[in-house]
Amino acid sequence: MRPLIIDCDPGQDDAVALLLALASPELQLLGITTVAGNVSVQQTSSNARRICELAGHPQVGVYAGCPRPLLRPLETAEQVHGKTGIDGADLPEPKMPLGSIHAVQYLIDTLMAAPAPITLALLGPMTNLAVALVQQPQIVDHIEALVFMGGSAFEGNVTPAAEFNILTDPHAAQVVLSAGIRRVVMLGLNVTHQVISTPERIERIRALGTKVGQTVAAMLTFYGKFDIERYGLPGGPLHDPCVIAYLLEPHLFQTQPCYVEVETASPLNLGRTVVDRWGASGQPANAQVAFGVNAQGFYDLLTERLGRYQ
Amino acid sequence: MRPLIIDCDPGQDDAVALLLALASPELQLLGITTVAGNVSVQQTSSNARRICELAGHPQVGVYAGCPRPLLRPLETAEQVHGKTGIDGADLPEPKMPLGSIHAVQYLIDTLMAAPAPITLALLGPMTNLAVALVQQPQIVDHIEALVFMGGSAFEGNVTPAAEFNILTDPHAAQVVLSAGIRRVVMLGLNVTHQVISTPERIERIRALGTKVGQTVAAMLTFYGKFDIERYGLPGGPLHDPCVIAYLLEPHLFQTQPCYVEVETASPLNLGRTVVDRWGASGQPANAQVAFGVNAQGFYDLLTERLGRYQ
Amino acid sequence: MRPLIIDCDPGQDDAVALLLALASPELQLLGITTVAGNVSVQQTSSNARRICELAGHPQVGVYAGCPRPLLRPLETAEQVHGKTGIDGADLPEPKMPLGSIHAVQYLIDTLMAAPAPITLALLGPMTNLAVALVQQPQIVDHIEALVFMGGSAFEGNVTPAAEFNILTDPHAAQVVLSAGIRRVVMLGLNVTHQVISTPERIERIRALGTKVGQTVAAMLTFYGKFDIERYGLPGGPLHDPCVIAYLLEPHLFQTQPCYVEVETASPLNLGRTVVDRWGASGQPANAQVAFGVNAQGFYDLLTERLGRYQ
Amino acid sequence: MRPLIIDCDPGQDDAVALLLALASPELQLLGITTVAGNVSVQQTSSNARRICELAGHPQVGVYAGCPRPLLRPLETAEQVHGKTGIDGADLPEPKMPLGSIHAVQYLIDTLMAAPAPITLALLGPMTNLAVALVQQPQIVDHIEALVFMGGSAFEGNVTPAAEFNILTDPHAAQVVLSAGIRRVVMLGLNVTHQVISTPERIERIRALGTKVGQTVAAMLTFYGKFDIERYGLPGGPLHDPCVIAYLLEPHLFQTQPCYVEVETASPLNLGRTVVDRWGASGQPANAQVAFGVNAQGFYDLLTERLGRYQ
Repeated sequence: MRPLIIDCDPGQDDAVALLLALASPELQLLGITTVAGNVSVQQTSSNARRICELAGHPQVGVYAGCPRPLLRPLETAEQVHGKTGIDGADLPEPKMPLGSIHAVQYLIDTLMAAPAPITLALLGPMTNLAVALVQQPQIVDHIEALVFMGGSAFEGNVTPAAEFNILTDPHAAQVVLSAGIRRVVMLGLNVTHQVISTPERIERIRALGTKVGQTVAAMLTFYGKFDIERYGLPGGPLHDPCVIAYLLEPHLFQTQPCYVEVETASPLNLGRTVVDRWGASGQPANAQVAFGVNAQGFYDLLTERLGRYQ
Repeated sequence: MRPLIIDCDPGQDDAVALLLALASPELQLLGITTVAGNVSVQQTSSNARRICELAGHPQVGVYAGCPRPLLRPLETAEQVHGKTGIDGADLPEPKMPLGSIHAVQYLIDTLMAAPAPITLALLGPMTNLAVALVQQPQIVDHIEALVFMGGSAFEGNVTPAAEFNILTDPHAAQVVLSAGIRRVVMLGLNVTHQVISTPERIERIRALGTKVGQTVAAMLTFYGKFDIERYGLPGGPLHDPCVIAYLLEPHLFQTQPCYVEVETASPLNLGRTVVDRWGASGQPANAQVAFGVNAQGFYDLLTERLGRYQ
Repeated sequence: MRPLIIDCDPGQDDAVALLLALASPELQLLGITTVAGNVSVQQTSSNARRICELAGHPQVGVYAGCPRPLLRPLETAEQVHGKTGIDGADLPEPKMPLGSIHAVQYLIDTLMAAPAPITLALLGPMTNLAVALVQQPQIVDHIEALVFMGGSAFEGNVTPAAEFNILTDPHAAQVVLSAGIRRVVMLGLNVTHQVISTPERIERIRALGTKVGQTVAAMLTFYGKFDIERYGLPGGPLHDPCVIAYLLEPHLFQTQPCYVEVETASPLNLGRTVVDRWGASGQPANAQVAFGVNAQGFYDLLTERLGRYQ
Repeated sequence: MRPLIIDCDPGQDDAVALLLALASPELQLLGITTVAGNVSVQQTSSNARRICELAGHPQVGVYAGCPRPLLRPLETAEQVHGKTGIDGADLPEPKMPLGSIHAVQYLIDTLMAAPAPITLALLGPMTNLAVALVQQPQIVDHIEALVFMGGSAFEGNVTPAAEFNILTDPHAAQVVLSAGIRRVVMLGLNVTHQVISTPERIERIRALGTKVGQTVAAMLTFYGKFDIERYGLPGGPLHDPCVIAYLLEPHLFQTQPCYVEVETASPLNLGRTVVDRWGASGQPANAQVAFGVNAQGFYDLLTERLGRYQ
């Protein structure tokens, strides 16, 4: 079992990622940290707990993190995710308590005390980990791997240059990418935009006939509307669950070692993840960047795992 | 017949573009202006004339232009094109004279005096046209269309962010793109990298059995070495001739109206053509950007036209 | 007699600079080039000729230059200079013709043909000279010295970081400063803000009792209003005439060799002239930057010279 | 008594600031936080404790903070301060322990628990407070005032544009300046460069005849060497003690409300504090910026207070 901390800003796709992780015995979910991103940190902290309760795991520690990015003003994405961030789901207020310490403190304490290095899954803006790295750089030695959804090798979404998670806190992303973490895997829009929740795929999940299946189907139906209208896609791309799928079945993704740097200076390209695939920069690779994905394999895995919930 | 001025920095691919244009009766080549880029402007001015003589058109006016970009220091690309810029060709020193006025003056005078708007084909850094636009902005009204090879909707080549022509003079490119020219067509690396001079395609050209065919085949053989080694491509991409092919058979390319802006501020993304395909910037489209190309159709056209030379 | 070309955008203070130069036998004014800046190039070209006629020198060649900066949109300053640019003066439409060639062409032709190097006085945005330098870099060898009003060693005026002339075309200023001109003298706001047209000084000029004296006094009275209101100064600073005063009596100014570079990237500091007084940048000095001025000596010189007009 | 936390990176001038504060009954020093800056955070944490012990206050809590800036690589200044950061002093290894929690945690906990708002004195790079503000923005409501040494209204020192404290972590400074703290006072190089430790002033301190007096005199003698050589000043400017002097006798300084923003984008102006004195930016003032200082009054105050140590 791989010890894991998930840092997230649910978000329907974060929610599905949490459900996928909580259904997977290969992963030992040590805790969940939340951050402002898709919606406010109050809301993401509530949503993370709702999903844990839906999954039957109210014992998982959920720790609220930074309510704002390092330098940029927070711009949330209710136009995509709805007012709650997980619109489509119909889940009660969480009963499980929020962890009593700050997410940043949780990250530092847990990593520094860990008997073995821990894997981090980052599904939102990277503010929490960036702040932890600035405060206590030695945590790097206790990170087994960092797998994140964010950026793009080609086009952005919020702007032509940038993807939402990275644009929300580009400075944090650059802190993380330049921190010397031994293994970093980047799953950007160039692959996640191939992992589309088509009506057929949603139907397979709904057909599981369970509370989890119905909730996921309802969330994905709501969530798909934005991409269908904006990009003419046949459904919403399941960005964040790709991170958990990569941890479970890395062979679903084709990756290539690249040097990746985040634009923090220019307004025009702010938040762009500049991916050096051909070695033009002369910098050593600091990430494995995904360029291909088996989308059907991903949905098969997701549906099978969601089917484990009763 | 479409009146046309070609601004270029030959370069083997510029040379092939000139040969394609000079073999095509649909185009009335008014003049050729040269600029520093692949090699120095002295060399590109010499090369343009050698190609005119090879094509049997020593009467064409060739006007030497700016020997340096607006702000960046000139960085030429002998590592790709060889010392002369058209290594592989074995052509004598030109006998035809260089035009007696500066390329910038030629552009302004010709455009302002034209009875009907003129089409511009830009195959190199855009310094000449940018300088002309700053000096005399009214030339915009006399430009029928501007078709350029440069930039990329996705990846760059010289850097992960930028393509050679645009990176050489990013400020000039931004002057041109923001000048209000009524019709601009961008053919970037995202399409030209699909137009590969494979050994088979080169062989078809060599098999024409003419001086032109042999010279082109020899140039493309030399020119392909760089891309074969660097990117593992099966040959060199014929960037610049795409511009002439677009003028002859636009249906070979699929384009989409986009807002395009050039990064001139950030070192990391310097020279990147930020292509707004989805309207995220809120800016009106200022270019038709190519996203698809019929590469075989292109080589069929090229080979047929080169075959018209005796 | 020192051969001189004045490039300007009159502007009341440009107008006074022209009058000072035209009254000074030490200077051989070869020609005047105009540029868009304080007002449009049409208006500055008209104003330059009005002043030549007021000075009794209708034979001077006046050449209209670039109507726009290299990259930035033109932002004129009618709020300072009034609708005509020389509000306060009451001068008829000029009768003398505008030169038939473009200012950029005039600069290139005159410099390249000059028997001895020529001094340039730049009183506005540097667009004309920048464009000339990009087109024909060899003109550098024919420039004896370049004295310009622009920038600041400390505070700006239009923005906290930037002065009007440089901010109007920061890219042009950087082209000029990096061109390798053998002798460059910068007179920035840090000195020109000490050269104030107090009511007493204006009165001395009015008391000359001539048409020129009355016109200058009226212009300076109008022109002072802005600075009196905005900065609480006792009058308007006579920025541009400092350049001519420096050519006549350099000892009025204390200068120091510095490396100067113009910010062209950051919106916050756009157009700032970064003056390296202490060698922190490691770059060799490219300008003599003025840090002190004898303001009373300046007004004595100006009043005496204006008094030579009948 | 004004409750106060001092965040610092001693540094000889920080050391004098601490001694000045510890000698002043008007100030209730709650704790000292340290940061990487002049030297490493290990060294600054040691130095802060040595100074507390020298002052006879080993009970003060000293909390080690961030060992690195947010985004920039750490560049320390041993060339100015010597290997220890307080070269010139001859002080034993500290016996008092370092606080057991991180400076960031100390700042958050202390501010959130404070019965009344607390004043912060920032004498180094602002990393600690920036990280605290990102983690827990509500601390703003518990800050009575923030007085910092950093930046400049005019010239920088490390670069022509930037001062050491701000350049070391420009992003942190911008986080702090934009955080909405109700009262911020900026004491930049434009005033601290007037507060020079001349030989006479050092002699007066040495003449106190105490251990503290001799130590301060020795530190200032060492510390002055750099500025004497680099800028030709008659001694080192006592930057950081100005902050404590301001808290004790604000009338020693003339301030003006300004909008201040830190350049975080452009390499050329990185770390520049752009001070909008004339309202050109249209932004409301976020700081009281000092433009004048009574240097002799400062040294009188300092000498008198240091004289209170036995």
